[in-house]
Amino acid sequence: MKYADSGVNIDAATRALAKSKEAVRSTWDQRVKNEMGAFGGLFQAAPGEPLMVASVDGVGTKVMIARMVRRYDTVGQDLVNHCVDDILVQGAEPLFFLDYFATSKLEEDVLPQIITGFATGCRENGCALLGGETAEMPGVYGDKEFDLAGTIVGRVNEEDVIDGSAIKAGDKVWGLPSTGLHTNGFSLARAVLLDKAGFSVEDKPSELGGLSVGDALLAIHKSYLHDVRAIWQAHGRASVHGLVHITGGGFYDNIPRVLPSGLGVKIDTKAWPTLSIFKLIQAKGSVSDEEMHRVFNMGIGLVVITDPGVDLGGVAGIEALSIGRVTQNDKTVELLF
Amino acid sequence: MKYADSGVNIDAATRALAKSKEAVRSTWDQRVKNEMGAFGGLFQAAPGEPLMVASVDGVGTKVMIARMVRRYDTVGQDLVNHCVDDILVQGAEPLFFLDYFATSKLEEDVLPQIITGFATGCRENGCALLGGETAEMPGVYGDKEFDLAGTIVGRVNEEDVIDGSAIKAGDKVWGLPSTGLHTNGFSLARAVLLDKAGFSVEDKPSELGGLSVGDALLAIHKSYLHDVRAIWQAHGRASVHGLVHITGGGFYDNIPRVLPSGLGVKIDTKAWPTLSIFKLIQAKGSVSDEEMHRVFNMGIGLVVITDPGVDLGGVAGIEALSIGRVTQNDKTVELLF
Repeated sequence: MKYADSGVNIDAATRALAKSKEAVRSTWDQRVKNEMGAFGGLFQAAPGEPLMVASVDGVGTKVMIARMVRRYDTVGQDLVNHCVDDILVQGAEPLFFLDYFATSKLEEDVLPQIITGFATGCRENGCALLGGETAEMPGVYGDKEFDLAGTIVGRVNEEDVIDGSAIKAGDKVWGLPSTGLHTNGFSLARAVLLDKAGFSVEDKPSELGGLSVGDALLAIHKSYLHDVRAIWQAHGRASVHGLVHITGGGFYDNIPRVLPSGLGVKIDTKAWPTLSIFKLIQAKGSVSDEEMHRVFNMGIGLVVITDPGVDLGGVAGIEALSIGRVTQNDKTVELLF
Repeated sequence: MKYADSGVNIDAATRALAKSKEAVRSTWDQRVKNEMGAFGGLFQAAPGEPLMVASVDGVGTKVMIARMVRRYDTVGQDLVNHCVDDILVQGAEPLFFLDYFATSKLEEDVLPQIITGFATGCRENGCALLGGETAEMPGVYGDKEFDLAGTIVGRVNEEDVIDGSAIKAGDKVWGLPSTGLHTNGFSLARAVLLDKAGFSVEDKPSELGGLSVGDALLAIHKSYLHDVRAIWQAHGRASVHGLVHITGGGFYDNIPRVLPSGLGVKIDTKAWPTLSIFKLIQAKGSVSDEEMHRVFNMGIGLVVITDPGVDLGGVAGIEALSIGRVTQNDKTVELLF
């Protein structure tokens, strides 16, 4: 199966987004410091000030798994952590977060669980849950369905912005382990595991070693804030040349977002253990290696590109695997399977 | 009809939100400068710095009207202007905005219209459309349905924050005209006009003077940024003691959000012309005066509370109507019909 078969047409989205770019650009002035397509937007209100970094996201159809399992206190954590990672890759630390929660019919026992999830995520990342909006929209949302959106605002000093421009051929590529799907690829995962393979979320296939399908799919998106702080502390901020959050589009679409022109990466996918949930999806869906790495993080949630002399393996309290090198190869991601 | 009859149970929402408050508070530290329930959140990253002011919102089931009329370039403007007004009432001017757009199935011709609406709203308010997220979620959203959420970030100097604490008995209450429903009360409006009265969005009932039901309902939420700037310029910032955005909850729930303890307002609803769309809803739905003013803005989108000596009627370029007075009356909103 390919991602498009599961009902999401990424190409159509890309074309429509391209048409929208000019409209977005028309609102930008010299205060906007990022390029189109960055993980987060960079905004400098006045020259010399720290940059505000902001990002908005949802958790995709992971909300449907949460509803099936009737566990509502993890998706908020997913969303906060996802947003934290999106601004972290530009060097920013979070200040505050705002949530949007909308559903067909507000259930009194669900809302507090949702908000508790957001609050837990915020506390763990030291950011304030500064605002929120709750909407009940019968008709817009399917019966008992709900959606979440979240916006994070952080900041970074101008000289500390990480935009990948420091990346050089020969730099080391490191991978930091993910906990599972994080917040992307759920349409394909659902199509394969629930529709094609016929699992329910309660099923515990032997491939998952005792974990249920629902539990494996709901594993909470990891925030890499504490890991990256540990790296900065151990090796200095300048040692980190690039950070990539492996989200929708997997390795192939995300890594080029930070690569300077003329550079590529070569990554050995055998350098880390593929999480069992991905093995199960690949097997049950007969999904190719390439497609798997285009849709999923496969066990690596954050890619860290460092100076060749840096050894992240020795940083206390974190797990970092050496997975590849930066090459002379214009924005190409070469994966060895 | 009452609002609850249209499918929205505000009391259930209130109870569930109350349960969530403690979770939210657990994420707050000394950097959060607002009380729970403020229009926007106030965040001071470090002592002495300007305060960041942020707010998140949607446009409610106004999205359903947009879909029926097949006009997708106004709801984005609605949302930006709504958010601008939510932080303006605390004295803040907007810096940037981020949008979330999710739908059952991405239509290539719809997305660029949606984004164009956001961009137009941002340009008109001098803020950057700094980021956005688009999600295709078949199953979560009803067929062809979509939803929007937006987050705005602005700022204000600490000494310029408007929190209502300057309001005194005898202060004048002014109303600035709205363009229509703005972004609230759509569930009741739809229940009355489309379901009960049986109008289609193309119908042009004589009460609307040539306007179609769809056009009247889609009238774009007004941003009061330029009006309030004109007031500040004419009379100084200190002349404005309080600003109230009349959103969900109408006059009764929103005005108390800024009133100091021991004070109320007495407002003469005959001081402004009720917009024809509200007259039509009230007549067709047999809605009481009180309920109308609890759900809708009735033609007043922003309430400005000033020093008694200030005459906003003389401010060039804006329309402001004297509609009432601040009274000694603990947080009570008294409306004269």
